[in-house]
Amino acid sequence: MTMRYLTAKLAQQIDEELMSATGAFSIDQLMELAGLACAQTLATVYSKEKYPRVLVCCGPGNQGGDGLVAARHLGMFGYKPTIWMPKPGSKEIYKRLKTQCDNMHIQTLTPTDETHSLRDILARSDVILDAIFGFSFKPPVRAPFDAALPLLNQSGLPIVSVDIPSGWDVEKGNDAGVGLNPDVLITLTAPKEGVRKFTGRHFLGGRFVTKAMEEEFGLNLPEYPGFSQIVELPRVTEDTSQKL
Amino acid sequence: MTMRYLTAKLAQQIDEELMSATGAFSIDQLMELAGLACAQTLATVYSKEKYPRVLVCCGPGNQGGDGLVAARHLGMFGYKPTIWMPKPGSKEIYKRLKTQCDNMHIQTLTPTDETHSLRDILARSDVILDAIFGFSFKPPVRAPFDAALPLLNQSGLPIVSVDIPSGWDVEKGNDAGVGLNPDVLITLTAPKEGVRKFTGRHFLGGRFVTKAMEEEFGLNLPEYPGFSQIVELPRVTEDTSQKL
Repeated sequence: MTMRYLTAKLAQQIDEELMSATGAFSIDQLMELAGLACAQTLATVYSKEKYPRVLVCCGPGNQGGDGLVAARHLGMFGYKPTIWMPKPGSKEIYKRLKTQCDNMHIQTLTPTDETHSLRDILARSDVILDAIFGFSFKPPVRAPFDAALPLLNQSGLPIVSVDIPSGWDVEKGNDAGVGLNPDVLITLTAPKEGVRKFTGRHFLGGRFVTKAMEEEFGLNLPEYPGFSQIVELPRVTEDTSQKL
Repeated sequence: MTMRYLTAKLAQQIDEELMSATGAFSIDQLMELAGLACAQTLATVYSKEKYPRVLVCCGPGNQGGDGLVAARHLGMFGYKPTIWMPKPGSKEIYKRLKTQCDNMHIQTLTPTDETHSLRDILARSDVILDAIFGFSFKPPVRAPFDAALPLLNQSGLPIVSVDIPSGWDVEKGNDAGVGLNPDVLITLTAPKEGVRKFTGRHFLGGRFVTKAMEEEFGLNLPEYPGFSQIVELPRVTEDTSQKL
């Protein structure tokens, strides 16, 4: 039984079911667990001793919210996160999550910070957490992110992407070649079609999908170890990826 | 610098500050992290292989909400939790958390389950998670809990208490002798005055208190290890406890 890779539509459907009257989850709960899983994944691969300065790149949607939660937890873990957020989200939860980061004295670079260009902050970072676009992303990449993605790639810094690397088509992957090239991927809930060929280290988070939902959608998720919020998936080799 | 033990009033004040416009946390977020810390503590001490059947005892307030979150995570970790909830809370979040447990087929015993007495379910349990009363508890213990606490104590099962063992005065501890005798305590945010003399294994959870708040309230919290949501506190020996 292999894991099911989700279309964008199915990912959306699962998310809606979790937050429906039936699923009964609030977005606050899901985002908290998702962001925690992202922070734990980064901390598993990149130690705070060697990679203390994390640049958390946040988009304006729910993916950016996951990034804000992750930034806070990374701060709690002893990292020095900085948030790059050129288009702050307008949802109330987004603002609250941002305030929580402010309270931890996590610096946020918004468009008004003309003194801090992305290039400058990249030069002072050790690792990138990419929470720009999620499974509701539809190409093309628009400003200001179209100019940012190549800069992130060219920085030479390791990149941890959340759910779907930014710029990748949720189903077709990075065929267009405009997306990020992450070293690590933290998939939330279940992997998306577009990441079948991803050959880096791949983790799964979102330990809130019930057995009933797993069966309903035929997800065949792997077992999480102990009381961890993340599980590492078997790595896809170049060879296997050719066959997919 | 020793940890600060909180009065009931101070615990209340910290909680309010976290959820104020300044703190910006929602109760959903705090409860999720608190309940996760409770589940992880139980799982750290009592393995699912030896202690699969967890009786999660929930009061009608926020403490009970933490218990419901913990029950869900314990289910996710592979335990077989059962919820004993003789006075279900009326808050909307409490109902949602209950639905989330229902969706995992976690059985809940409410007052209407006349076929399941507490005595019966204790005979079919391996460990108790006590989430009945929290830091807003004021004696005396009222029905139906007055009859329940002695039954829980007499069951001989190990007990993990959340924040303050049920029946203990938040500041004076178990001087009255009517409270539970837990083996393990998971303190949330910072320890309460009443547990100074607690000699069992003692964990701290609630890794959401900012450094600024820690300083404001002089909490002197210990460092959490790695990316854990809990940290074990040094054990108070009978000797040390005499001196306190």
